[in-house]
Amino acid sequence: MTREEQVWADVEQIRAQAPLIHNITNYVVMNNTANALLSLGASPVMAHAEEEIEEMVGIASALVINIGTLSVPWIQAMQKAQRAAAAKGTPIVIDPVGAGATALRTRTVHELLSAVSPTVVRGNASEIMALQQADAGAKGVDSQHGSEAATEIAQRVADQYDCVVCVSGEVDYVISADRKVRVRNGHALMPRVTGLGCTASSLIGAFCAVNPNAFEAVMHAMVVMGIAGELAAAKAQGPGTLQLYFLDALHNLSAADIRQRIQIES
Amino acid sequence: MTREEQVWADVEQIRAQAPLIHNITNYVVMNNTANALLSLGASPVMAHAEEEIEEMVGIASALVINIGTLSVPWIQAMQKAQRAAAAKGTPIVIDPVGAGATALRTRTVHELLSAVSPTVVRGNASEIMALQQADAGAKGVDSQHGSEAATEIAQRVADQYDCVVCVSGEVDYVISADRKVRVRNGHALMPRVTGLGCTASSLIGAFCAVNPNAFEAVMHAMVVMGIAGELAAAKAQGPGTLQLYFLDALHNLSAADIRQRIQIES
Amino acid sequence: MTREEQVWADVEQIRAQAPLIHNITNYVVMNNTANALLSLGASPVMAHAEEEIEEMVGIASALVINIGTLSVPWIQAMQKAQRAAAAKGTPIVIDPVGAGATALRTRTVHELLSAVSPTVVRGNASEIMALQQADAGAKGVDSQHGSEAATEIAQRVADQYDCVVCVSGEVDYVISADRKVRVRNGHALMPRVTGLGCTASSLIGAFCAVNPNAFEAVMHAMVVMGIAGELAAAKAQGPGTLQLYFLDALHNLSAADIRQRIQIES
Repeated sequence: MTREEQVWADVEQIRAQAPLIHNITNYVVMNNTANALLSLGASPVMAHAEEEIEEMVGIASALVINIGTLSVPWIQAMQKAQRAAAAKGTPIVIDPVGAGATALRTRTVHELLSAVSPTVVRGNASEIMALQQADAGAKGVDSQHGSEAATEIAQRVADQYDCVVCVSGEVDYVISADRKVRVRNGHALMPRVTGLGCTASSLIGAFCAVNPNAFEAVMHAMVVMGIAGELAAAKAQGPGTLQLYFLDALHNLSAADIRQRIQIES
Repeated sequence: MTREEQVWADVEQIRAQAPLIHNITNYVVMNNTANALLSLGASPVMAHAEEEIEEMVGIASALVINIGTLSVPWIQAMQKAQRAAAAKGTPIVIDPVGAGATALRTRTVHELLSAVSPTVVRGNASEIMALQQADAGAKGVDSQHGSEAATEIAQRVADQYDCVVCVSGEVDYVISADRKVRVRNGHALMPRVTGLGCTASSLIGAFCAVNPNAFEAVMHAMVVMGIAGELAAAKAQGPGTLQLYFLDALHNLSAADIRQRIQIES
Repeated sequence: MTREEQVWADVEQIRAQAPLIHNITNYVVMNNTANALLSLGASPVMAHAEEEIEEMVGIASALVINIGTLSVPWIQAMQKAQRAAAAKGTPIVIDPVGAGATALRTRTVHELLSAVSPTVVRGNASEIMALQQADAGAKGVDSQHGSEAATEIAQRVADQYDCVVCVSGEVDYVISADRKVRVRNGHALMPRVTGLGCTASSLIGAFCAVNPNAFEAVMHAMVVMGIAGELAAAKAQGPGTLQLYFLDALHNLSAADIRQRIQIES
């Protein structure tokens, strides 16, 4: 199969299986995340209570942990959830939103990574840099560091935790111990919509649920994110309409869209 | 009055009175729920702190309890709220999101129902089945069990708690001790938008606020939900735009829309 | 510079600086608020954990506190945040959502105002009246008191706390110890979208971040809110589409839009 056929095969698997993706995520993006998963064909669930977290992980096909609006009870739930996922071999995606901006966030993500090797870490350049630096100079949660500069750190994170790291930005880098690709799909208007990075992390969860090769799952997810963004941007008049057309595009995505638009570079 | 005139009379009452609907609901859908109530003509409030819950119930015309993102402090607020509502005779709608998926959810909804008879329970087939079964085989929160199979359980729940039960799905069943109807309005794209079930529960709250006959209130609410969904789907290109056109349709709904589209079967 | 040029200068400053606006706000509107700030050109962050609140305030250019879905842990975070902002001279905007509706809300906002003088308070007429009255007769959070009646109270609040008070409604009043203007921009459909008042408070935060004259910052923010609403309403078919076109309009706003539409009266 060509790369584009493999991306499409994953999309078809997601639509056929509707894998349950368990999100412990932030308040800002929960609705978008759930809608993006549904539009893609997956089945979202949000749950954060310690009392049910292990049971919910137990029926899920992937776990996505996002630290965007962190608090102590939620950190405990995240820790419990990742242990349950690891015990069962369920893919784990970590989204270190705002790592570097405060000690709580930086420390929490370090602790999560140290306790259990995730399958994937996805963040913007500042957030990925904060995974190995005390002061990454993050400015809030949508910082625009040079992504190139972050890829060296990403490589180290990938090596250290034996996981796939995705540095998203104008170009998305997908990096593992022995592979590295650039995904050039996407559109400049996307960072003007809150939580599209968080959405990417959840879609990665859905791709990991159907594709056991995590590197390829991440690459395919970022291609689909980017192409849906391009299709949406072609119709949108701004970030408001972009958000909705993005969901429509995920829902209507075809093999031809992928074939015509895919942009991956080794 | 014909049935369509009665549906319309309720809509007009909601628009005229703007009843305050108090929602203790999940983080994922709060925004959609508030917007759907506003678009219909009702007045939404979200409040969950134990310290204010009784006072807020005291000024509300209906209470909607939705367990979609449950945690212990919220359960305590729900219990306190339903006692306050019962004491005042305020209609109570329970939405057992994800009942059957975890013991916490199943147990919480059993406890809520046992403590205070609700006016209405609305859920999908899996959720309703979990109200009487330990293992309903729920898969997350948007499961698609055969709704027909759930109606027997729904009947038992309606009898046991002396309430109206709505099993929503491709066909919506409205069931009480002595009545049963099918509402056939709606569109296949609606389950691709997160939280439209939760929205239905809140709109039921608004109809209960103006119509003392709970069975009719639920039936009318489901007709309005379904018709707004049909009108939205006729314009939408996917689940993203559907969500917004749905709100527009609720806002612009006319007596003629109801007359031309209503589909109720005994 | 004419007034319209000053409004536009602030918009250009926000776009150029992308000031980080720290929001401690309610669950219902977090997504809209973040998107509105991004569409305007600012950079949003939401954080509420006591453990990181001072650090986050430390990197922010304005703090917006909104009590829409209050609970005790969040009140503590709000108090800590405003102390940190005051110590650093960071502008503070208070949005007293639902003040008057419950004792918890009324008391919390009184305590916040008494502890630290805010830069700006923005609310609807009922909420502003509750700042000086035990029983303001608030009905939920979108009450429509006569705004004129509230301006007298607003004047007293402005004097007492040495801040700017904005009473928003069909006409928006901006009031300080020695100035008062009416902003007549806006559209009747706007109150049918949840959280546009909360959005106004956050946009005020962004304008305060770039304009040290708080009175002018509030006036300019309300002009921009209102004009974006007018531009959106011209295209919208209801409150659903209004919400998205509003974000598009903020993103696409031009000096000409402001020049042609600005409506301020002394």
